[in-house]
Amino acid sequence: MPEALNKGLRNVVLDTTESSFIDGELGILLYRGYNIHDLAANSTFEEVSYLLLHGSLPTQEELGAFDKRLRGQRALPSEVLRTIGLVAKSHPMDVLRTAVSALSAFDPDTEDESTEALLRKSERLTASVPTIVAAHERIRKGLDPVDARADLGLAANFLYMLTGKEPGDEAVKAIDLDFILHAEHGANASAFCARVTASTLSDLHSAVVSAIGTLKGPLHGGAAEAVMTMALEIGEPERASEYVKARQRNRESRIMGFGHRVYRVEDPRARHMREKSRALSESMGQAKWYQILEAVEKEMSRYQRHGIYVNVDFFAGSVYYLLGIPEDLFVPIFAIGRVPGWCVAVMEQLQNNLLIRPLLRYEGPMDLKYVPIDER
Amino acid sequence: MPEALNKGLRNVVLDTTESSFIDGELGILLYRGYNIHDLAANSTFEEVSYLLLHGSLPTQEELGAFDKRLRGQRALPSEVLRTIGLVAKSHPMDVLRTAVSALSAFDPDTEDESTEALLRKSERLTASVPTIVAAHERIRKGLDPVDARADLGLAANFLYMLTGKEPGDEAVKAIDLDFILHAEHGANASAFCARVTASTLSDLHSAVVSAIGTLKGPLHGGAAEAVMTMALEIGEPERASEYVKARQRNRESRIMGFGHRVYRVEDPRARHMREKSRALSESMGQAKWYQILEAVEKEMSRYQRHGIYVNVDFFAGSVYYLLGIPEDLFVPIFAIGRVPGWCVAVMEQLQNNLLIRPLLRYEGPMDLKYVPIDER
Repeated sequence: MPEALNKGLRNVVLDTTESSFIDGELGILLYRGYNIHDLAANSTFEEVSYLLLHGSLPTQEELGAFDKRLRGQRALPSEVLRTIGLVAKSHPMDVLRTAVSALSAFDPDTEDESTEALLRKSERLTASVPTIVAAHERIRKGLDPVDARADLGLAANFLYMLTGKEPGDEAVKAIDLDFILHAEHGANASAFCARVTASTLSDLHSAVVSAIGTLKGPLHGGAAEAVMTMALEIGEPERASEYVKARQRNRESRIMGFGHRVYRVEDPRARHMREKSRALSESMGQAKWYQILEAVEKEMSRYQRHGIYVNVDFFAGSVYYLLGIPEDLFVPIFAIGRVPGWCVAVMEQLQNNLLIRPLLRYEGPMDLKYVPIDER
Repeated sequence: MPEALNKGLRNVVLDTTESSFIDGELGILLYRGYNIHDLAANSTFEEVSYLLLHGSLPTQEELGAFDKRLRGQRALPSEVLRTIGLVAKSHPMDVLRTAVSALSAFDPDTEDESTEALLRKSERLTASVPTIVAAHERIRKGLDPVDARADLGLAANFLYMLTGKEPGDEAVKAIDLDFILHAEHGANASAFCARVTASTLSDLHSAVVSAIGTLKGPLHGGAAEAVMTMALEIGEPERASEYVKARQRNRESRIMGFGHRVYRVEDPRARHMREKSRALSESMGQAKWYQILEAVEKEMSRYQRHGIYVNVDFFAGSVYYLLGIPEDLFVPIFAIGRVPGWCVAVMEQLQNNLLIRPLLRYEGPMDLKYVPIDER
C-alpha cells in the first residue's frame, strides 16, 4: 500500500517555535506569550518588532535604541532606487521582490549568518521594506521618491513617504495596528517558504525574497484586495444579501476573506480590523463600506454550517481603501508588517537546522525504452 | 503527548509526481520513465527539457520547433541587463535571483498561469537563464555581454556567451551532460520551495526566484564548489589520504560531495560526472585533479560504515574547473540545468493545488501580562 500523501502539509508538525502560539479552536493568538489583543490595544509596530526579533518586550531604553537604528536605516542605496525604476511597471509585489533581492548586494552582512548579523539584517529589512513600497508608488506615478522623515515613527513615515504629506493620527494608528496584526503567524506559507530557503543554509535576503513571492499569491496575501473589489462591486449595503446569495448558488465563485487554514472560530485579529473599519468609515463619512462588509458577513452567517468566519483580511481592505491606498498596495502593506515574522522564522530554522526536503510518490510510467529520435 | 515533529520533512510524502522517479535504495533515477543513464548517453539538454516540460520525448519536428523557440528567446531586455550591472558585485546566485525577478516585469505572461502560459514562460526561462549567468560574468569583468549565437545549441551558446569564444566539442558535451544530470530531482529543497510559492497561486517567476534563493545554500547547490576548493587545498594525489584522515579525526569538518538525503547507494548521476572528470583531466594534461578526487573517494570508503557514497556534485566541480569556469559560477550552472525541473514542479503543484502550510509546536511562555513600558 502506498504511503499516505500529506498534500498541503495540513496536519504535519514541522518543528517547534517560541515566536507565536495559535489556538485555532479557541481563536487565540500570542506573540512570544503576549495576547494579540493586549498588543493591539497597547503596543506599537516598533515594540512588536522588537518583541519578535529580540524575544522580550523592550525597556524604554532598549526601544529607544532599536527605534533609532530603524530610523537610521530607512534610506535605499541609489542602485536599488534605479532598479525599482527599471521594473516600475510591474505589480508592486514583483517590484518589492526584485528590490529586496537587489538590496542584498549592498548589505554588509549578506553572507554572514551569525545570530548578530541576522539581527542586524532583520532590523535593516524591517526599516527599508516600507521605503521600497513607498518609493515604487512615487516612481510609477512619475514623482520623485520622498525622503524618510526621522521625526516620524515607522507607520507615520511610511504614509508620509507614500503621499508626501504628514498623515493624520487616525490613519497612522490604523496602519500601525495593521502592521502589528500581520507581524507573525506561525508556519504560514510565506514564513514556511522562508524556512525552506534558509534550510539549505542560504542567506536571509534569499529567504525573505522567497517569502515575498509566496505572500503575493491570492490564497495568502491577496484576500484584502479581493474583498475590497467585492465591496466596490456590491456598491450599496442593500445589495449585499443578493450578491452573496448569487455567489453561493454558483459554487465556483468563492467569497474571499472567510475561512482560514488554522482558525475554526473567528480569527482573533479580525475584531480589531472590524472596529477600525467601522470607525474610519464613520469618521470619513463613508459609512457604506463598513455597512456593505457587515451585511456580507451577516448574510454569510446563514451558510456557516462548517464554521467559516471572517479572517483578518476581510476588513483590512476597507481600511486601506478609506486611507486612499491603491488596491495593488494592499499585499505589499501586509508584507511590511510580516518582515519581522519572516526573519524570526529564519532565525528559528537556523537554530537547529535540518534541510527541508519532503518526498513525492511517483505515478508515471516505468522503464521506458529510449528510442533514437529518427525512429520516433 | 505532543505530536511528533517532522523536522526536514524527511519521511513526509507531500504529493504525487509524474516527472521523476528516484529509488534511493537501488540508485535509480528516471525522468518521465526514462533511465538517466540512457538520457546521459543519448540525449541533449534541449531534448531532456522538452521531455520534462511537455511530458514525452519529442519527434524530430517537435524538437526542431522547441529548439527554435528557445534560440529565439535568449536575449535579455535592456532593463534586465542594466539591473545586472547595478548589482554586479554580489554573488552570481544573488544576481541571478534579482535578474529573474526583474525578468517578470517584461514577460507578457507573468500574471497568466494557464497551462499554455506556464509552458511559454518555462521555455523563456530555460532560454534566458544561461544568458543572465553569462552576461553577469562579462559585466563584472568590465566586458560587454556577448550576444547569443543562434547557430549554437544551448550548452555551446552558454559557453560562447561566457567566454566570447566558440567552445570545443569536449567542453560542450561536458556542460550539456551536466545540464541533463541536474535537470530534475523530485522534491529537492529548491523545487519544493517553488511548489510552496506556487501553492498560494503566486506566479511562475516568483516560484523560480524562490528556487534560486534556495539552491544557493551550501547544503543544496554549493557542494561542487566546496569539493573543488578541497581538491585545490589538497594539491597533490598523494596528500589526499592524509587530508581525509585529518578531517575524519576532526568531526566538525565534513568532507563535501558525499551522502545524499535520498540515495543510500551511489547517486546514479555521479558515474557520468566521474567519467567526464577523468576524461577531461587526462585530455587536458591535468590528470592530478581527477586523481586527487579518486584518492579522496578511496580513502573515504574506509569510513563508509553507514553507506555514504559520492553524489553528483563530487566530480562536477572538477569538470567546471577544468573548463576554466570561475568557482562561484558552479551553483548558477546547476541552476541553468534545473530550470525545467523547477517549472515542472510548479505545473504539477498547480494541477491539483492545496496551499502548503504545515504547523509548528509552540514551546514558549503562555499568557504573559503586558506591562506598560514605563513599568518595565
